[in-house]
Amino acid sequence: MSYSVPDSRRAAKSLDEHDILRHAREAFDIEEGVIYLVGHSLGPATHNALDALSQAGQSDWRTGLIRSWNEAGWFDLARETGLRLGRLIGAEAGEVIVADSVSTNLFKLASATLPLARAKVLIVEEDEFPTDQYIIEALSRVSATEFRRAAAGQGLDALAETGGVLVKSLVNYRSAEIEDMARAEQRATDAGGVIVWDLSHATGVVDVDVHQAGAKLATGCTYKYLNGGPGAPAFVYARADIASALQTPLPGWMGHARPFAFEPEYAPVDGIGRFANGTPPILSLAALSGAIEAFEGADMELVQAKARTLGDLVVKRAQAMGCEVVSPLDSTRRGGHVSFRHPDGYPIVQALIARNILADFRAPDTIRFGVSPLYLRFCDVWDAMDALEDILMTKSWDQPRFHAKAKVT
Amino acid sequence: MSYSVPDSRRAAKSLDEHDILRHAREAFDIEEGVIYLVGHSLGPATHNALDALSQAGQSDWRTGLIRSWNEAGWFDLARETGLRLGRLIGAEAGEVIVADSVSTNLFKLASATLPLARAKVLIVEEDEFPTDQYIIEALSRVSATEFRRAAAGQGLDALAETGGVLVKSLVNYRSAEIEDMARAEQRATDAGGVIVWDLSHATGVVDVDVHQAGAKLATGCTYKYLNGGPGAPAFVYARADIASALQTPLPGWMGHARPFAFEPEYAPVDGIGRFANGTPPILSLAALSGAIEAFEGADMELVQAKARTLGDLVVKRAQAMGCEVVSPLDSTRRGGHVSFRHPDGYPIVQALIARNILADFRAPDTIRFGVSPLYLRFCDVWDAMDALEDILMTKSWDQPRFHAKAKVT
Repeated sequence: MSYSVPDSRRAAKSLDEHDILRHAREAFDIEEGVIYLVGHSLGPATHNALDALSQAGQSDWRTGLIRSWNEAGWFDLARETGLRLGRLIGAEAGEVIVADSVSTNLFKLASATLPLARAKVLIVEEDEFPTDQYIIEALSRVSATEFRRAAAGQGLDALAETGGVLVKSLVNYRSAEIEDMARAEQRATDAGGVIVWDLSHATGVVDVDVHQAGAKLATGCTYKYLNGGPGAPAFVYARADIASALQTPLPGWMGHARPFAFEPEYAPVDGIGRFANGTPPILSLAALSGAIEAFEGADMELVQAKARTLGDLVVKRAQAMGCEVVSPLDSTRRGGHVSFRHPDGYPIVQALIARNILADFRAPDTIRFGVSPLYLRFCDVWDAMDALEDILMTKSWDQPRFHAKAKVT
Repeated sequence: MSYSVPDSRRAAKSLDEHDILRHAREAFDIEEGVIYLVGHSLGPATHNALDALSQAGQSDWRTGLIRSWNEAGWFDLARETGLRLGRLIGAEAGEVIVADSVSTNLFKLASATLPLARAKVLIVEEDEFPTDQYIIEALSRVSATEFRRAAAGQGLDALAETGGVLVKSLVNYRSAEIEDMARAEQRATDAGGVIVWDLSHATGVVDVDVHQAGAKLATGCTYKYLNGGPGAPAFVYARADIASALQTPLPGWMGHARPFAFEPEYAPVDGIGRFANGTPPILSLAALSGAIEAFEGADMELVQAKARTLGDLVVKRAQAMGCEVVSPLDSTRRGGHVSFRHPDGYPIVQALIARNILADFRAPDTIRFGVSPLYLRFCDVWDAMDALEDILMTKSWDQPRFHAKAKVT
């Protein structure tokens, strides 16, 4: 199935009616009237996620108490959730586990892979997601490893030049531009270097295939397109053939080969399990586990195809309104959100929110519309663009209440 | 108020009736008939914790969506919870934040404090909680720092000898023996060394006063005596006068001075906030936030006094049954659990569980009874000891079903 950009609300409606993914929306618990364009930041709740959360709290914790480590499967939840999540990025069984935050996992993976790289150099680009930069610079300081902050878009050149370790987002958080994973991996291999991928803005919306692309190591966020809940724990992927060669700098008891033997010496379990650390936050993990079910049976190629066309619709109409689109216009190079600029972006986004159309703003002038394909319909995006057009035409954003700044935007 | 060890069920009942802490139990949502002696491993749910969890999921996430970062206080939740938690260990406002796991926090604190110690040596005792050993040994490897695994009880001597950094549990996880914090800090100061305290088995049951004892750095678990829920995120304490001198090896965006400026260079916020890392698991954090309310107004000196007497009751009756008590007999040197040995400890604990008396077992032969004072009554512990006596006398543990091993014990 392919999608084509609708040129009317009627065409949008018709696309929705024939959309193979149309039933995916039923998994979500989104209030009537809300158009949610911030799935690239915090995905909405699904019925299964809320049910799993309630089960974990009210039943497993309240009633099962300590017994739930065995009886409710808490002990295996991080691996079991990783197994189901891994399918969405093309990983095999036993290559993904849920653990910690993306920040911590970047530290773990970059540290663990340094011995595998030809050169002990840590590389990150200056327009990379800031936390990724902080973490890698800190790792270089702690481990006395050479650090290079490459210019935007020059990370792969630095990797090719040095044979070091590059931390790289597959989808840029600002522009949504997708890196060519297979090409990047080929350059890394040629140079004897290693890439640690940050899949935060990719997983659940881009049809990632780590094996096809030759990717060895990755981490990513689960509360964006995976809808795992606010601050849901992140995931770690390590290719099976190298996982057991990696030493994590944060060896917790959950990653020990014999966690209940309480041995003084660390002996990591084989494979990805070694990237578990302390006890994971079970309640948050349970919600994520439930959320992943929304992807059961979903064809990720189709999910990405729909995201592209939803994005094209935003691009086309934003351009028609005179907004400069920052994201790639070629949808094959664009992830799940469209960034476009307007000097009054902040109050415009506030005016949209006042109409129950949730979008986000990044200083100084960028509006981001996330187009998550499982719950967004073409008519939703059509209506959001209609609302934007109305706000721009009538200048209805120009009210004091839309200029008030919140702490988090 | 002081408690005296009851010598009959009637005396136990009378103690409960006059117990100043008797109303604290009302905060807990424990099923009728359950005697819960595993609060040193996983605390039970409180009504407030379950309500906060439900609010965070069903209302703040489901309905508030991304707006809840501002409107539901998610952005401040880790600090705000830290503030209330800090009171229980004698910390001042702004000295405690909730973040990550104990394992990760030990790594952060030990790494950050190395430059403050006279010698670059990392020390941990061979009977320390295993994860603490793994983490500190891994930090030594990553940072090329000298590592010493001291003999049990010899960590302070190694600290005095070297002036390095010692990671030390205030309460030993096996025996519940309490270290003398003030004396240890004095020795550390004299030697130019630093102690990173693991307060996991102390917080919420021992009347810790970090300032009085001169403690500079600590982390601890929140799902044991604080009842924060399975795998609830841990806390970090750094004394105000040194916090801003510490560089965390895991600098996440949540610890940046200007988290929404998305600056490529890390600039830590002043004080404890710098030990925040990535986005915290909000749902788990919300449950913890609600759980802490059970301690509002509780006098920690009284909480510890009750724990001591509850423990004395276990000690006295276990000894009368011929069990060897591993924990200190002197209750002033004992934390919140009592460990005692029996060659058939495993099936005995299973037989207790079959009677709705939840306790735990540590190989090869140790039974642990946690005596958490907020929800346990003297008559509960009396009844548990009666049951144990009956199980031992009748040998009713000697049934195949009590010998079957679960994955987690």
